[in-house]
Amino acid sequence: MAKQKPVGNMLIAQSGGPTAVINQSLVGAILEAKKQSNIKKIYGSLHGIQGILEENLIDLGKESVSNLEAVANTPSSALGSVRKKPTSEDCLKIFEILKKYGVNYFFYIGGNDSAETAHIINEEAIKAKYDFRCFHICKTIDNDLRQNDHTPGFGSGAKFVASAFMGDNLDNRALPGVKINIIMGRHAGFLTAASALARVYPDDGPHLIYLPERPFAMTRFLADVKRVYKERGRCVVAVSEGIADSKGNPIASLFIKEKDSHGNIQLSGSGALGDLLAGEVRKKLGISRVRADTFGYLQRSFPGLVSEADAKEARAAGTMAVQYACTKFANGSVAIVRKAGKSYKTDIKRVPLKSVAKETQHMPAKFINKAGNDVTKAFIDYAKPIVGPLPKIGRLKAVPVKKIK
Amino acid sequence: MAKQKPVGNMLIAQSGGPTAVINQSLVGAILEAKKQSNIKKIYGSLHGIQGILEENLIDLGKESVSNLEAVANTPSSALGSVRKKPTSEDCLKIFEILKKYGVNYFFYIGGNDSAETAHIINEEAIKAKYDFRCFHICKTIDNDLRQNDHTPGFGSGAKFVASAFMGDNLDNRALPGVKINIIMGRHAGFLTAASALARVYPDDGPHLIYLPERPFAMTRFLADVKRVYKERGRCVVAVSEGIADSKGNPIASLFIKEKDSHGNIQLSGSGALGDLLAGEVRKKLGISRVRADTFGYLQRSFPGLVSEADAKEARAAGTMAVQYACTKFANGSVAIVRKAGKSYKTDIKRVPLKSVAKETQHMPAKFINKAGNDVTKAFIDYAKPIVGPLPKIGRLKAVPVKKIK
Repeated sequence: MAKQKPVGNMLIAQSGGPTAVINQSLVGAILEAKKQSNIKKIYGSLHGIQGILEENLIDLGKESVSNLEAVANTPSSALGSVRKKPTSEDCLKIFEILKKYGVNYFFYIGGNDSAETAHIINEEAIKAKYDFRCFHICKTIDNDLRQNDHTPGFGSGAKFVASAFMGDNLDNRALPGVKINIIMGRHAGFLTAASALARVYPDDGPHLIYLPERPFAMTRFLADVKRVYKERGRCVVAVSEGIADSKGNPIASLFIKEKDSHGNIQLSGSGALGDLLAGEVRKKLGISRVRADTFGYLQRSFPGLVSEADAKEARAAGTMAVQYACTKFANGSVAIVRKAGKSYKTDIKRVPLKSVAKETQHMPAKFINKAGNDVTKAFIDYAKPIVGPLPKIGRLKAVPVKKIK
Repeated sequence: MAKQKPVGNMLIAQSGGPTAVINQSLVGAILEAKKQSNIKKIYGSLHGIQGILEENLIDLGKESVSNLEAVANTPSSALGSVRKKPTSEDCLKIFEILKKYGVNYFFYIGGNDSAETAHIINEEAIKAKYDFRCFHICKTIDNDLRQNDHTPGFGSGAKFVASAFMGDNLDNRALPGVKINIIMGRHAGFLTAASALARVYPDDGPHLIYLPERPFAMTRFLADVKRVYKERGRCVVAVSEGIADSKGNPIASLFIKEKDSHGNIQLSGSGALGDLLAGEVRKKLGISRVRADTFGYLQRSFPGLVSEADAKEARAAGTMAVQYACTKFANGSVAIVRKAGKSYKTDIKRVPLKSVAKETQHMPAKFINKAGNDVTKAFIDYAKPIVGPLPKIGRLKAVPVKKIK
């Protein structure tokens, strides 16, 4: 239990990659803060901690509830985002600015790096004996935050991926060939795995799924594609952008020679990995119709394509972070836990900041098949309720007409 | 007026690139055929004319209405598709097979090439004095069929493109940089132009739009991006996959050295053009955060993202083709015409097969701005009712907090 809650201002910001429901958490936190008598002003910082460092703040208390609700239903970080990993010096400066603006309640919506930032700022506050309540609010389409059954943003991203594969599988069925789709997730394969939810009929793709959790070997990939194509006359493949060889070298870096000005292989926002794999299939297997699409940024910010469970949980994460800060806990992160039982129910618990900061989690082994080229039923059971209902797919009964000699 | 309608079987098939509503036309035609006493059996050919040549037919009379309705709401050609341009010999053979199966009513759903196929088959039937009714049913996301105000499939494709840009603009606003999105349409820029419907607020992207109807010059493109980026600190660009230089050479072919086994530059199903443009921006303008996404096949077959007007018109196109064939006309194509007046209303008229076959149409000059890097209000007015309502986008009022000295 924390001591008597402080009276003061609140500041909230968003960080890292946007999601379709990140503003649900923002609005959940704002609306809950309005109910809490000990929170006075509600500040928003533009572009995460960058906005704090530049004292670029807005007054969220001046937003109408109806406008907030419209924002909640709009994808991508309404406060702007940033990919800045602050130094300890930055954190000290941030803390000084928070003090100057009378901020006793700080909320940072983001992934593991944002949790780390919140953690360091909180440590500074403790050192300075400043009466401070500091919460990290979970989000990431990658679904790789520790302590969480799943994270806000994943369900909607997964819904996009599954929907896209449903349509793309039908496209590939109409005009057969090999189709490779590259999905986000540098180290965790959850979003790529969600492509499996697209399967409705036994012959539906994706027929092969490659995750960063298993070493990728080009020869085995080509053998897999060859087998499926021979069996079905077509092959739809889901590939994580983060696939790497047994030594952990990203496949893209092994095959793609061109690098950007920083010497990096650009993974997201580039079609290079898909084109590389398609080229290999064309060249080595002699299949003529081979196509690759890279889903790119569409999968994390597509409007009007939201998992209802995801939206609700994201909202609850924001609400509960403020509630916890105003009642029981001086600091922490909120994590989604799944309740035991047959029907899908979740809860938001408070976990220590340190327990979600820095390191991430990966797909557990029980979610990946032995061959390392598909997911298991356990994954489907896990992901289905998070994603919710998908479009209905009809198919002709297709009774053959007897050939006339 | 055609002579007395024949009594016989009907055959229908789908061809070319799938769309999100192509099955609406199929189902519209089947349900109307069931009402027509002179149509006996209703055959479907699998994979267009390929299925006729191989006598790979199914009995569509055996499909339940509820199953047909489920299929109507499912994207991508339910009968399968083909990209085969038949020779005159093929057409002759097709006609012989149609005769063998007692087919007096033939319907081919597709674009300009499919209209050409229907036209040649019809000529063969006339030569042979076979009592034949032959209709082409319009579809194409490219929106380039002559005689049509717009074509079934375009509205839903445009809805996907506009929705994607709405989300992507917000993503780019949260994490600023240059974002280039490549959109389908080799010769007609309608689908790329539809990205403009994503704009809600004055600063919204796409900030630049490049269409195949105007010659693309790399230097001018870079100058445009530089100007917008300087003004706004970010830039979202819509580029048609078919952009070409003043001599008509595709930009991709001028810059990309690697070709496939057939010596072709692959445009769709490759991220090469986007990566090329992003690379130039990075290199020549020294902007570090530059990303490119290629929307690829997602834009034509995404389930659950359909323009209502598009679905209705696609259904009506199928229905009316059968009605015309069974009443007034021996052959032709159905075309969507827009009625005069303030509110959006369309009609389906019969046009000669020859008038939609082969040649396509492009964006009229009045839809493109003078600089050739955007669309006009006339285009927005034209496209808006075809696409229908788009997701609502909320934005914070964002009242600045006065800096504390």
